[in-house]
Amino acid sequence: MSELLPNYVADQWITGSGAGTGLVDPVTGEALVRVDAQGLDLAGAFDHARRVGGQALRALTYRQRAALLASVAKTLQANRDAYYAIALANSGTVKNDSAIDIDGGIYTISTYAKLGETLGDRTFLLDGEATRLGKEPLFQSQHLQVPTRGVALFINAFNFPSWGLWEKAAPALLSGVPVIVKPATATAWLTQRMVKDVIDAGILPPGALSVICGSSAGLLDQLRPFDVVSFTGSAETAATIRSHPAVTQRSVRVNIEADSINSALLAPGDAPGSEAFDLLVKEVAREMTVKSGQKCTAIRRVFVPAASYDAAAQAIGARLAKTTVGNPRNETVRMGALVNRAQLNSVREGLATLRTQADLLHDGASRPLVDADPAIACCVGPTLLGTRDPDGADRIHDIEVFGPVATLVPYRDLPHALELIRRGQGSLVASVYGSDAATLACTALDLADSHGRVHVISPDVAALQTGHGNVMPQSLHGGPGRAGGGEELGGLRALNFYHRRSALQASTTVLHDVQPAPSA
Amino acid sequence: MSELLPNYVADQWITGSGAGTGLVDPVTGEALVRVDAQGLDLAGAFDHARRVGGQALRALTYRQRAALLASVAKTLQANRDAYYAIALANSGTVKNDSAIDIDGGIYTISTYAKLGETLGDRTFLLDGEATRLGKEPLFQSQHLQVPTRGVALFINAFNFPSWGLWEKAAPALLSGVPVIVKPATATAWLTQRMVKDVIDAGILPPGALSVICGSSAGLLDQLRPFDVVSFTGSAETAATIRSHPAVTQRSVRVNIEADSINSALLAPGDAPGSEAFDLLVKEVAREMTVKSGQKCTAIRRVFVPAASYDAAAQAIGARLAKTTVGNPRNETVRMGALVNRAQLNSVREGLATLRTQADLLHDGASRPLVDADPAIACCVGPTLLGTRDPDGADRIHDIEVFGPVATLVPYRDLPHALELIRRGQGSLVASVYGSDAATLACTALDLADSHGRVHVISPDVAALQTGHGNVMPQSLHGGPGRAGGGEELGGLRALNFYHRRSALQASTTVLHDVQPAPSA
Repeated sequence: MSELLPNYVADQWITGSGAGTGLVDPVTGEALVRVDAQGLDLAGAFDHARRVGGQALRALTYRQRAALLASVAKTLQANRDAYYAIALANSGTVKNDSAIDIDGGIYTISTYAKLGETLGDRTFLLDGEATRLGKEPLFQSQHLQVPTRGVALFINAFNFPSWGLWEKAAPALLSGVPVIVKPATATAWLTQRMVKDVIDAGILPPGALSVICGSSAGLLDQLRPFDVVSFTGSAETAATIRSHPAVTQRSVRVNIEADSINSALLAPGDAPGSEAFDLLVKEVAREMTVKSGQKCTAIRRVFVPAASYDAAAQAIGARLAKTTVGNPRNETVRMGALVNRAQLNSVREGLATLRTQADLLHDGASRPLVDADPAIACCVGPTLLGTRDPDGADRIHDIEVFGPVATLVPYRDLPHALELIRRGQGSLVASVYGSDAATLACTALDLADSHGRVHVISPDVAALQTGHGNVMPQSLHGGPGRAGGGEELGGLRALNFYHRRSALQASTTVLHDVQPAPSA
Repeated sequence: MSELLPNYVADQWITGSGAGTGLVDPVTGEALVRVDAQGLDLAGAFDHARRVGGQALRALTYRQRAALLASVAKTLQANRDAYYAIALANSGTVKNDSAIDIDGGIYTISTYAKLGETLGDRTFLLDGEATRLGKEPLFQSQHLQVPTRGVALFINAFNFPSWGLWEKAAPALLSGVPVIVKPATATAWLTQRMVKDVIDAGILPPGALSVICGSSAGLLDQLRPFDVVSFTGSAETAATIRSHPAVTQRSVRVNIEADSINSALLAPGDAPGSEAFDLLVKEVAREMTVKSGQKCTAIRRVFVPAASYDAAAQAIGARLAKTTVGNPRNETVRMGALVNRAQLNSVREGLATLRTQADLLHDGASRPLVDADPAIACCVGPTLLGTRDPDGADRIHDIEVFGPVATLVPYRDLPHALELIRRGQGSLVASVYGSDAATLACTALDLADSHGRVHVISPDVAALQTGHGNVMPQSLHGGPGRAGGGEELGGLRALNFYHRRSALQASTTVLHDVQPAPSA
């Protein structure tokens, strides 16, 4: 039997009492470690985090908490090699793909360490200026943002065991809110290991960080009115969380990041051969293959003027044909595995469903795997589909195949393209490619209400642009509608979720005494 | 049979096909009007508002929409007498109480008209400054706030048929979002009449404002991903709304304002005879009796140092004894009726429950009603309860009696008081009375995370303070936990709910073209 990883709750390492669930190498099928959360005292764990962790964190200033984040980043940096080894074994990802998760997580913490530093030696935030509540200036209203006195529960997705933890934990800890993370079982190892390294380094105050690996059973039952829960994953699980009494009856604040049928749009007027066309082709091929398409921000629909459909199909297909797929331990391999058998089956099923309404423009299944047994390895080649009936093919606007799959969609004119993109019912990100600044600006504006982020690629920023699918901590991450309606990151905006806004109505003499000093 | 009020949907006045529900004078029992929403084409109504109303409103700038609000306020101002007559008949309120609802609503619209003017000739808002996404300054991230392309559905409470509509509609319309209001049946008349006056005046573009009176059946089923719903009322109904598939599956944004066990706190050190003590006594008596205690912001728990318990009971009781209760048409009457029989019964039941754990310090039932038949009129005198066991008497921290009822609670020291206040599990407002600015500031800060508003009354602002229970549009209205977790008002902060935040990542050349011009 493989090693059973302990959970960290109430400042103790405790292994579950059950047999546990095995984590597996998706390329070789090798058993790696096991996780289990049975028998844990969840009530005690949450109470400890809330009481001990919350009090200790709130007693620190933002600057002091920012310094903790900087130390966390340093510790993770020192252990990077171990994380890459775990990612290779457990996620089956090539080095560049592991980097997005591991170095992306460290970069995000470092960014919040720097942002936190700017907040200085205070324990709460002023929200706007004081406003008179009448003609006399003596009685005024001053809004505050104060840390919520609860825990932040993270229920995370399998595709980002590192970044998914730190992009949430950094703003939570900076806000003075203790964290309990429940990583997705399939890749829980990396999350658990990072938490272990941070705990072993003795950086954070007691109760500030806990990790529970295995089943999420009973976690939501622990949530009380001042707690918050942040979930990344399927729309189905999201609906279950939103329906839980903690949310419906106790007003526990929820942040959801769920399915998203993201779009890439080539502006009208940028024909094949143009720089914008080439930029779209390159970005689409990259987004389809990075992390084998297992990114919630990946491009799923590619919109091009109808006249450019064939050229785009040919150009994207030619790039995909160069993507070698297989064992990430082989240096010639550019794309590794999906995370497990269940995901492989799910991608195959999704592909079959899309194919009832779409043509196969590039077939990733036709090339042999490198250094991997197709009967064992959860690898699948990149596949480009296409439709000539974008209005009738409703499934391509509705089904997220979480793998290296995208659908090419021709449009008549810009209003037609925008209408089709809207059929995604709200997405995390859309990217727009073109050379005319005015067209790009007006298109981006039109997409803003249905996308948490609009990424515009024009030739002048070809070498600078940060990537359609890369989530920068400076920008909002989340999207309306089927994307879940959540808001993460966006620089200091991320702190809002972990703070409570309150209007303080008082004499200016009293308001003058509401100073950013250590909390009461 | 009394008049059947028509609904206004898809820009048509349509009466329901059912017999309707009768609205009644709570003092005389007289039948007034009927409301009914049966047989309405709800899908058509929502689609019309979304398509016609949304497009028309979004085509206007904030300044233009602000001008519409100013016109709405003017129209309502011109029809005030009719509204006072309806409130007197349907809500059974004295003139001062009707004013809070009617003039409070008009003041709130006027405030948003002025705030909107400051936003100028633009159709969307910039959210913060552009930020570099790397060392080179050419590629940056600029956050925007753009109006959501959906409808705002308001499901409102009976106690504020005017203010409850306009405090929500003003920021929604200013944001460019069409409104559908479903007033509480018991007092729907005033809401319907105000909407009628505004529609008749031809101020708003087609589809911008609809009113549906009667049952709320089927309304939530109409909501789609970009719509929002704002509810004021019971925690039970709030849970039903939060559990609806529109919310759990389609990520419809929800704002909830529910139960709240608000507190008033006399600081330690301000003994009987002090100015702060007198200010507390006056405010508690006022809050208990205004609108017969039917305000979600009313004081329900009064915390005083144990040594001041008897003096406070005596002083508050003496004030309450002067409150004449009965028919608001009689000029000597200071407090009118509860809204209906059901509320009267609910208050009596709640009182009986509280009395199992509390003593009767002032009995409002002992005085005869003025000009009202106790067998018909839904009147109840103000009642002050008290407990000597604040830690054991759990019901006083948990049961909201929605009438002229409060409980006096003695505390040992400030930490004890703060702990007891926290047992309300999150409230809309707490007020603090005292003379020492430092104590007041530190107490207010401690209460901020569990209260949407903290109202501090010190002697210097005795004549200026705006009232514990009065909701000023400049300040946040809403509270965490059992108060529902919502956020309304707070000046321009109210617009956030009706906007979508999006990060626009682009070349500064493109960002330069994202100008506040009429929308695409």
